[in-house]
Amino acid sequence: MGTAPETSSPVMVGVDLGGTYARAGLVDTEGTIVASFKELLVERSPAGVVEAIAASVRKALTAFPGAVVGACGVGVAAQLDGTTGHVAVAPNLGWRDVPFGPMLGRRLGRPVLVVNDLVAAAWGELRAGAARGQRDVWVVFVGSGVGSAIISDGRLVRGARGVAGELGHTKVVPHGRPCGCGERGCLEAYAGGHNLIAQMKEAIASGRPTSLARLAEDPVRLNPAELELAAAEGDPVASEIYERAGGHLGLAIANQVTMLNPAYLILGGGVLSHCPGMQDRITRMVGEYASMVSRQSLRISRAALGDDSGLIGAALLAAEAATSR
Amino acid sequence: MGTAPETSSPVMVGVDLGGTYARAGLVDTEGTIVASFKELLVERSPAGVVEAIAASVRKALTAFPGAVVGACGVGVAAQLDGTTGHVAVAPNLGWRDVPFGPMLGRRLGRPVLVVNDLVAAAWGELRAGAARGQRDVWVVFVGSGVGSAIISDGRLVRGARGVAGELGHTKVVPHGRPCGCGERGCLEAYAGGHNLIAQMKEAIASGRPTSLARLAEDPVRLNPAELELAAAEGDPVASEIYERAGGHLGLAIANQVTMLNPAYLILGGGVLSHCPGMQDRITRMVGEYASMVSRQSLRISRAALGDDSGLIGAALLAAEAATSR
Repeated sequence: MGTAPETSSPVMVGVDLGGTYARAGLVDTEGTIVASFKELLVERSPAGVVEAIAASVRKALTAFPGAVVGACGVGVAAQLDGTTGHVAVAPNLGWRDVPFGPMLGRRLGRPVLVVNDLVAAAWGELRAGAARGQRDVWVVFVGSGVGSAIISDGRLVRGARGVAGELGHTKVVPHGRPCGCGERGCLEAYAGGHNLIAQMKEAIASGRPTSLARLAEDPVRLNPAELELAAAEGDPVASEIYERAGGHLGLAIANQVTMLNPAYLILGGGVLSHCPGMQDRITRMVGEYASMVSRQSLRISRAALGDDSGLIGAALLAAEAATSR
Repeated sequence: MGTAPETSSPVMVGVDLGGTYARAGLVDTEGTIVASFKELLVERSPAGVVEAIAASVRKALTAFPGAVVGACGVGVAAQLDGTTGHVAVAPNLGWRDVPFGPMLGRRLGRPVLVVNDLVAAAWGELRAGAARGQRDVWVVFVGSGVGSAIISDGRLVRGARGVAGELGHTKVVPHGRPCGCGERGCLEAYAGGHNLIAQMKEAIASGRPTSLARLAEDPVRLNPAELELAAAEGDPVASEIYERAGGHLGLAIANQVTMLNPAYLILGGGVLSHCPGMQDRITRMVGEYASMVSRQSLRISRAALGDDSGLIGAALLAAEAATSR
């Protein structure tokens, strides 16, 4: 798990809160994880999650008794108020209106910065990953959900309530598919990993002839990679789901390149790493639909930190927030 | 034309470059225009425009011989590189690839900041108009063209090449109507004032029965306000154009509210001031389609400076750029 941090230099605590596990880590000022522990979420109630996080943080700290904690940040898949840590909706956890930041802060006995998981991941990529040293960056993740974070002139664009960058909840089909956020027609409802799988299941259940039906017995293979494969083999049902998702993603991303004019577009997340064709399509559509000047100097690259970006980014963001207070 | 500026306090020169006139003004540090002169563009070549601007600036300065010019900024309806002042496309002027900033700087004998006209107008509203004192603001103008400027935490989001905020050139219909920028399917091609009029003319020329035909004899009335009126009276051809424009505008603006999470959305521009129904529709669609958290605390209001915002904003932006150099 890396070497022990110098007792004199503070470490940051970063927590990546998923739907199944909470993973806490100690992160040094360079953005390297020096220790991390994953704790199963035995129950998903706010109180249960707070306990699981406290346990994982305690274990990480026990491993380095001399560590001085400089700041603590948590990334969570949620629409939340970044200024208060109040979670409005966290579909994976089944939460609505939870004062998560204050609860966790009381339990840990220190201020905790609560941020959207993709904002955290983007910040990790900016400070310690693919976008290190850049100033105008847009980081897009297409995983179970779809989200992004905007960095303008080296600063995070947070928005008035801390929810800027919610690409997945821009509407691509008014009154369209229901989304986990409680609304309809969101990009995520078509192109997020959970929803790609849901659409595969719906197609199989509909009885339309499709090669996807062979996956019904083997839930592990019911995933976006198999969808891309079936679409590439010409299965019309798979193509319909896949093309629609790719088309919405590509156009939405191209339009944001026009609006934000980043120097770098970083693409990450499980769906894109398992569906190379989807990533190629996004790149192609950005080249076709983004405005002339915005696309001319744009560089597109893959995220570099994999599953660690959220933990690292939450820790580094908390440290920077603490410094700027 | 206001009172003479104190000779000790520097004034800024702001220029609003339209398709027909160049208007130069002296602006004080409070954002008040103390003198302004409008010069007809006798010819629209880059050299001709540079001469017209030089003449209008000279006249403004002659009126206040004691004035010390602190900075000079020009707003122009163009996709341009804000760092160099190089204009990529300016449809109203018929320009492509014009090194306008350097040309004008040489002619005026001082550095000139060249910015998109709507960025300038937005900055004017931020510093001296409807959004004064706010930190997270998105200013949208729907006039002849469609554009916007993004202010995040009190700072302008410029983008890597200075073209962030080009809402009008996000694509709403892939391969759709041709746009003045040379591409297809842009929001501006459906909802910009020039294009609303063009669509009215096309509808009349098509011979489809429409009450718009009565306007053909009276070009002054061939305008978006008459379109809104005809649509409200149930004319199906007018409704088609108007509803499509409003639908695209409303959804695009709602989606950017989701992405940017501004505290304030400022709406301005001639189309919106002459079409109150369009502005109502945008407000309604933002309430319906923007993400939950982003719409909860959003305030929407009208631009306050009218036609002066671009001139004032260009001057103030130039002053701030000069200070930060």
